[in-house]
Formats: sequence, C-alpha cells, structure tokens
Amino acid sequence: MLYLVRMDVHLPSDMPADQAEEIKAREKAYSQRLQREGKWPQLYRIVGEYANYSIFDVESNDELHTLLSNLPLFPYLEIAVTPLARHPSSIH
Amino acid sequence: MLYLVRMDVHLPSDMPADQAEEIKAREKAYSQRLQREGKWPQLYRIVGEYANYSIFDVESNDELHTLLSNLPLFPYLEIAVTPLARHPSSIH
Amino acid sequence: MLYLVRMDVHLPSDMPADQAEEIKAREKAYSQRLQREGKWPQLYRIVGEYANYSIFDVESNDELHTLLSNLPLFPYLEIAVTPLARHPSSIH
Amino acid sequence: MLYLVRMDVHLPSDMPADQAEEIKAREKAYSQRLQREGKWPQLYRIVGEYANYSIFDVESNDELHTLLSNLPLFPYLEIAVTPLARHPSSIH
Amino acid sequence: MLYLVRMDVHLPSDMPADQAEEIKAREKAYSQRLQREGKWPQLYRIVGEYANYSIFDVESNDELHTLLSNLPLFPYLEIAVTPLARHPSSIH
Amino acid sequence: MLYLVRMDVHLPSDMPADQAEEIKAREKAYSQRLQREGKWPQLYRIVGEYANYSIFDVESNDELHTLLSNLPLFPYLEIAVTPLARHPSSIH
Amino acid sequence: MLYLVRMDVHLPSDMPADQAEEIKAREKAYSQRLQREGKWPQLYRIVGEYANYSIFDVESNDELHTLLSNLPLFPYLEIAVTPLARHPSSIH
Amino acid sequence: MLYLVRMDVHLPSDMPADQAEEIKAREKAYSQRLQREGKWPQLYRIVGEYANYSIFDVESNDELHTLLSNLPLFPYLEIAVTPLARHPSSIH
Amino acid sequence: MLYLVRMDVHLPSDMPADQAEEIKAREKAYSQRLQREGKWPQLYRIVGEYANYSIFDVESNDELHTLLSNLPLFPYLEIAVTPLARHPSSIH
Amino acid sequence: MLYLVRMDVHLPSDMPADQAEEIKAREKAYSQRLQREGKWPQLYRIVGEYANYSIFDVESNDELHTLLSNLPLFPYLEIAVTPLARHPSSIH
Repeated sequence: MLYLVRMDVHLPSDMPADQAEEIKAREKAYSQRLQREGKWPQLYRIVGEYANYSIFDVESNDELHTLLSNLPLFPYLEIAVTPLARHPSSIH
Repeated sequence: MLYLVRMDVHLPSDMPADQAEEIKAREKAYSQRLQREGKWPQLYRIVGEYANYSIFDVESNDELHTLLSNLPLFPYLEIAVTPLARHPSSIH
Repeated sequence: MLYLVRMDVHLPSDMPADQAEEIKAREKAYSQRLQREGKWPQLYRIVGEYANYSIFDVESNDELHTLLSNLPLFPYLEIAVTPLARHPSSIH
Repeated sequence: MLYLVRMDVHLPSDMPADQAEEIKAREKAYSQRLQREGKWPQLYRIVGEYANYSIFDVESNDELHTLLSNLPLFPYLEIAVTPLARHPSSIH
Repeated sequence: MLYLVRMDVHLPSDMPADQAEEIKAREKAYSQRLQREGKWPQLYRIVGEYANYSIFDVESNDELHTLLSNLPLFPYLEIAVTPLARHPSSIH
Repeated sequence: MLYLVRMDVHLPSDMPADQAEEIKAREKAYSQRLQREGKWPQLYRIVGEYANYSIFDVESNDELHTLLSNLPLFPYLEIAVTPLARHPSSIH
Repeated sequence: MLYLVRMDVHLPSDMPADQAEEIKAREKAYSQRLQREGKWPQLYRIVGEYANYSIFDVESNDELHTLLSNLPLFPYLEIAVTPLARHPSSIH
Repeated sequence: MLYLVRMDVHLPSDMPADQAEEIKAREKAYSQRLQREGKWPQLYRIVGEYANYSIFDVESNDELHTLLSNLPLFPYLEIAVTPLARHPSSIH
Repeated sequence: MLYLVRMDVHLPSDMPADQAEEIKAREKAYSQRLQREGKWPQLYRIVGEYANYSIFDVESNDELHTLLSNLPLFPYLEIAVTPLARHPSSIH
Repeated sequence: MLYLVRMDVHLPSDMPADQAEEIKAREKAYSQRLQREGKWPQLYRIVGEYANYSIFDVESNDELHTLLSNLPLFPYLEIAVTPLARHPSSIH
C-alpha cells in the first residue's frame, strides 16, 4: 500500500554541528535500511529545499506512523502524508 | 531527469457525458503510450480525489511542458510541477 | 484501518431540483448500506455547513478510494482524506 | 454533544527531556481519565505528525473549553475545534 | 450557549431580481423572528461586504445547525461557526 | 461605533511565570475597567484557544487603536479588527 | 476618520458589453462625486490588476458601508476594509 | 526599470474556439511588438501551466499598467507584479 | 511615482528595552525626514496592529528599495510593496 | 535550461554581526563566480524585501540543486524553484 510523503527539515539554528551530524548519520542509516527492506522504495530531494518527497510501501497506516515517528530527525520534521491508490490508467 | 507532477481534474459540470468520455479515452491512451515509452514511469490516484500524483522522466523542462500541454485533458487540469534531484541518502 | 474524511458538497446552482433530490436519495441509501456494513462507522454534519466529517474503516487505500469514488455525489464533492493511526494514550 | 478537535503539539526545542517526559505522563493520565469518563470517546494519531484528531462528548462549549485548557500540554498545543451535529443520513 | 457565526452571501449572478428579492424578504422575516425569540441576539453587517457577523444563543450544536440550515439563503451562504465560552476576565 | 476584534495571545515560552502572572493581572484589571466604562461590551473566550473575540464600542478608529495598544499584553497579541455596521435586518 | 479600502472587480464574463459600459459610467460619476465631496480623497489603480486601493474619509463605519454598498459595481466587487489611525511618527 | 510579472490565463470554458484563437493571435502580435521594442525583454512559459513569467522594462508604474491593461487577453488574466531593484551582488 | 507599502514590525522579544527605544527613535527621525522631503507623503497606523500603511512617492524602484532598506527597523520589518498607477476615475 | 528561483533570507536575530558579514561576503563571491560562469545569468533584489528573484541556466535539476545547496547562506534561505520552458510567443 503506497503513500506519498513530504518531509521538510527544520533544525534549530543553535543546534551544535556535531549533534546535527550525529543525527543525520543515524537518519541516513535508518533510511537506507528501510530502503533495502522495500518499505521506502523511493526518496528524492526537492530542488533547492532541505526537504524530500518519498514513496512508502507499507501494510497499514499504523506501520507507516511507526516508521516515520522512529526517524532520528522526526522531532525536527514537518511531514505531510498523502494516501495513494491504483490509477485506472496505470499500466502497472 | 525526474519531476513530481500533481494534476487535479476540473471538468465543467455542463460538459456532455459523451464528450467527457471521449476526452478521457484519449487521455488514457496518451498516458499509456507515455508510460510505455518510459516518460511517465509512475501514475497514482490520490485517495478520494479526482487527481493524480505522477513521476515524469524527461530530458528537459521544455520536453516536460510539451508532454503535459498535449494531454487531452490539459484545458481542464490544474497542474503543479516540482523538480526532483538525487537524494544523498538514496540507495539508488 | 481508520481514515478521517471531510466531504464538502458543491451542487451546481442550476441543477434541477428533482435531479438533486434523486442523487441525494441514492447517496443516502449508499451511505446507509456502508454504515451497516461497518465500512463507514461514523458520519457527522459540520454545524452550519453542507459538509460532513466521517470515519471510514477499510482494508486499504484502494478500498477507500473505491468506496468514495462510487458515492453518487462524488462529482460534486471536495474530499480530504487523513490517515489515522492508534494513539499511544488511547484506552481502546 | 460532539466536537471534532485537532491538536498539534509544539514543544520548545530547548525544553529539557525530563520536563517533557513529566508533562507527557500527566497528559496521558489526564487523557485516559477523560476517556474512561466518556468525555473523550475517540483519540487518534494523525499519521506522520505529532498531532491527534479527537471526538469530545460534552454538555456545553464551556465544559469543552475547561477540559481542553486543563490539558497539561495546553500551553504547547495548537487546537482547532469543529462543532458537530447529527447527520440526516446517519443510522445512529 | 453562544457561537460566533460569519455568513458570506454568494448569489448566482444570473438569479432573476424578483427571485432574489423574494428570498431576501423571507430571510429577513426568518432572521427577525429568531432575533425576537432570543436565539439570534446580535446581527451586524461587515463594512464593505455582503456578509454578517452574528451571535447565536442556542441549546446545542444540533439546534444551531437546524436554525442555520433553515435560512432561506442557506444554499447561497458560506458559513463559519466558532464556539464561544465564558472569558475569565468578563464582568458578565 | 462597533468593531469585532479577535486577539490571539502568544507569550514567549521562556517568560518567567511570575512575570506572566503580573501582566495577566494588569490585563484583567484594564479589561474590566473598559468593560465597566462600556467601551468593551463583550468579551468571549474562543473554545480551545488562548484567544478571544470581543466587541468594542468606541468613538473612532483612533480611540480603538489607543485602547488596544494600551493593553498590557499588547506586545504579545496578534490582533485582527473588523469594522461593523448596522445590519438592515437587525431589530435593534 | 480614514480607512484603506481595496476593491477587486469581477464582472461576469457573459455580461453584455453595453451593460458593462453603462455600469462603469455610473460608477465613475458616483466615484467622482464622492471624491469632490472629500469622502473619497484618494483612488489609485493597482498596477496590472482590475482593482484599486482607495482612502475613504468618513464619519463612521455606517457611513462607509452606505457609501460602498451604493457603488454601482458593488455586486461585482470584492472589498477589503482596513481601519486606519494616526501614526505617532506622522508629521501631519 | 524592471518588474517581474506573472500572468495566469483563465479563458471561459464556453468561449468559442475561433474567438479564442483570434484573441490569442492578437495577443501574440502585441507581445512580439513589445518584445521588439525592448519593453518586454523576457517571456517564459511556466512548465505545466497556462501561465508565464515575464520581465518588463519600462519608465514608470503608469507605463507598465498601460502596457498590461492593453493586452488582448487582459480580461482573462490574473496578473501579479513584483517591482525589482538592482541587487548589490549583481555583476551587471 | 506612487507605491503602497505595508510594514509589520516584529521585534525579537528578548531585545533590551533601551536598544528598542534607540532604534525606534532613529526610525522616527528618519521617517520624519523622508516625510518632510515629500518621499513618504502618507503614513498611517493600522488599527490594533504594530504595523503601518504608507504611500511613497519616488523616482524609481531602486530609489524605493534604498529608502526602505535604510530604515533603522528594516531587519525587523516584514514589508509588502504594491506599485500604484493613476486611476482613470480619479479627479486628480 | 532555465529556472526562476526566489530566495528569502532569514538570518537568526542573534547571529553575531561579524559572522553574518563573513557569510554574506562568501555568498557574494560565490554568486559572482556563478554569474560570470553563466550559470546565474540574472539576479534582482525584490523591492523592500531581503529577498531576490534569480534566473538560473543549468544542465539539469541535479546541477541546480547542487549550486543552490552550496550557497553559503543556504541554511538561512527559503527557496522556491519554478521550472521554465520556451514560450511560443517569445521572439528569442
């Protein structure tokens, strides 16, 4: 079951650089694990913004919320979720 | 080069049903041709709305505008385009 | 799996009264069938508006879109869907 | 009498972790007491957000404001209240 | 129990003048009856707009929706309802 | 001459509690003096929000601005003013 | 007493040209009478838009609403009114 | 003196095709005349939209309004004008 | 050449009172100098807000930007500029 | 391939002046290098705002994101990107 997810990152301007780097490193590892597991099949940077558009492929709303709320950057993210359905003109 | 495209369809309420069907049939054929050519690799319905989110894969801004403005439904579409870039955490 | 759905009804001002009544009668029958089946467990009027907030309980995004797009009033509805998850403080 | 209430939580990024935990523990206890009393019959997490949609069942506008303004998290909440009425198509 | 209600009137530009006058005459009579009954204690024109701000004093959300949805102009109104509570600094 | 005024209070999260209490006490006294003088005839809490809707009855735009800008909470208020006129359907 | 007023003109696209010209001629005459009387001391076109910003100088909210609602174009105007006060740094 | 201008075209859906073509042909000729005169040095299509971003180079606000309001499509355009100044980092 | 300018002042809540007073004193002197020179012919307080609407009369976009960016309060201002043109119904 | 880019600068109010100057100096040097290379052919100040509108001329979405995210001011910028295409009425 697919969802389009937009995430905008808002790090506090007074966060120490090493703390920011540590969180981003954990975020990257977490994200790549989910990508390899097929839960997070697509991840794109929005040009010019510290933000991404992603496609998640999960079993339920609850699973999606669990995955998102465990993001190391979650306290600093503004997230918008759009549930997707099969399009009648899709060839897939 | 990838772009996220959202299309909302607004058909006039007084359009005759057969005219609407004819346009939608041409739209479907056009869309499926672009999907098969790899220009429109993803097409999803937004749950509850007469709208879609799509990913387009084209050579340039000009090619994307040409593809979109040739949509049979183009006069009745509200379209928003977001250019995408590679995300540094993507495994692809 | 639960979703909060808001529906705003926008009937064209020139729709003949009997046509409007006929659509609304079919909408009511359809809605009550889904309520009895447990798919649409809650349906509330928004005070002062020709609109409702509803809770849907379905198996998937695709099932929800199918149910909503089959609403007799669908061509005249503005619909917003919010996926819901279990709240950690809920006693249910 | 029913109301739909949306609450978005905005904790200051410099709030000490133990203070945040203490407030959230009181919030949970307070919420569960109101749920058991039937005042707060429904509480859902919005997928991907630190926010909830809730249904409150109270005697009056004043009672609702008293309940909400006594939430331990109230100073950090953005709250939107929508009064609900019986829907003529509801089977309840 | 008090509510602030804003009503914006949007009459179709092609409504015949006598039909508009007839609806407005019924609206005025209906409004004045509710004012005399104490249900609609305040009614003000918003300067420069075909709109009003009103205070309603009713027993419940359901009563308010019934009163508003029976307005002769209801099909042409955009209505926003804000529930009000006693203010701790009010001298009343 | 009447105005509808909405005030939303935004106290800085790091304001010491006793300073906040002192300002609120002065705000209450000031508000109640204006209410007794008939300048601020109505004051309501918006349900669920740290905000109010008020009716002011003053001689001029300048008098209203003077009254509002002298509110002890003024530096922390977001204020929106709507000028009101007599409504032709009002029985008053 | 001064007010800033913004007016946006929205004529129906199917209004006959001579009817539009007749209304605009009456609007111009009415506007110039109010300008000569000192009620409408300033009137500017917003560059690129069929809209104006104006300053009105009137005795009361009621007078302003009467003047605006008597504009021949009033049924086709979207009007926003901002009450103005003396600025402490003004040299006038 | 430079201005950024965004124009969105909204043709009525019931405008006859030949009337639309005739207006667009006059628009194109008018636009190209201004481009050759140096008044309209840049004109770009916004990807996916029936809209453009343009740079105008004129002597005054009044000249810009005259040029824009003489566009054959002006009655069907939504126009937004942003005045531009020299940027201190520009090498031009 | 005239422009309508709206300025909203947002001073940081932790700015020392004497620093704020010093900036405001320089702002007032600067403003009054421009008013006396005829560059800033009108300056009004927006009722209830720490904001103003002003008319500037300058030679060019560049001159306007220079005047505004030299305001002592500029780092704390949110400014919106609307270019104005002569209105065909104006008697001036 | 052209893009319109709007950048709004939001420096934290507590950033030391010399740090701000150092970043702005690097920003200017970086910007002028890109201008000389033809990547950033146009750069304009928005009148009254600490913001710019720019045209970028790049090979791809990825190149644009790389150029923008390397701006020394990037952590303090709100950026909006609009892809542009050739306009059929352009004489270029």
